Amino acid sequence: MSAEEVANAFVQHFYATFDANADNLGGLFSDQSMLTFEGQQVQGAQNILQKLKAVGPVKHNVKTTDIQPSSNPNAIVIFVTGAIQIGGDNPLHFCEFFQLVGTGPGQYYVHNCVFRLNYGL
Amino acid sequence: MSAEEVANAFVQHFYATFDANADNLGGLFSDQSMLTFEGQQVQGAQNILQKLKAVGPVKHNVKTTDIQPSSNPNAIVIFVTGAIQIGGDNPLHFCEFFQLVGTGPGQYYVHNCVFRLNYGL
Repeated sequence: MSAEEVANAFVQHFYATFDANADNLGGLFSDQSMLTFEGQQVQGAQNILQKLKAVGPVKHNVKTTDIQPSSNPNAIVIFVTGAIQIGGDNPLHFCEFFQLVGTGPGQYYVHNCVFRLNYGL
Repeated sequence: MSAEEVANAFVQHFYATFDANADNLGGLFSDQSMLTFEGQQVQGAQNILQKLKAVGPVKHNVKTTDIQPSSNPNAIVIFVTGAIQIGGDNPLHFCEFFQLVGTGPGQYYVHNCVFRLNYGL
């Protein structure tokens, strides 16, 4: 798979899993992983999973996915924008960044993740 | 300077320079630098500068800046959201990602940059 194929497959998997059963997201992260969610930073798979699950029932609608090779030759940066509905509320804009780092052939984990809602002008 | 201080100084400098005189942004990029601007990807300082200047008169209002260490120990990832006014039009949401890579003590260049407007729901 090319970096682009890896990244697109990741994005599809991440949001489908998040919306269906966030419990299953834990395997994407490691102890080195960092998440900044609306300005709150947590580290490690367990803490990240807890943070993501705390969002509650959610539906993501991805609109754009941009991909670049990172400065680390084993890593890919992914930038996503779209709409998110939390708990059945009206949709809001969101944007999210991931850095995937390769650990072996076809094996990646999420090293960086930053999530922000984008509202108010 | 800590990574956080570097990142905050970069964000302040980048948008102030962009809004005042985009010609002066060229020195922040190298031949390895990549920009994806609304889905259009360009590489290298010259091409990036051309792309940024083509935006025309612009005013950024940064609302949030999130910073994390990258997988490359010499690099910092920066995630910005805010509002942008292009050519005096109404403000729109934007989000932008940078990866700064260190080349020496206190010396960084922008390796990755992704810019997206966030509109329509």
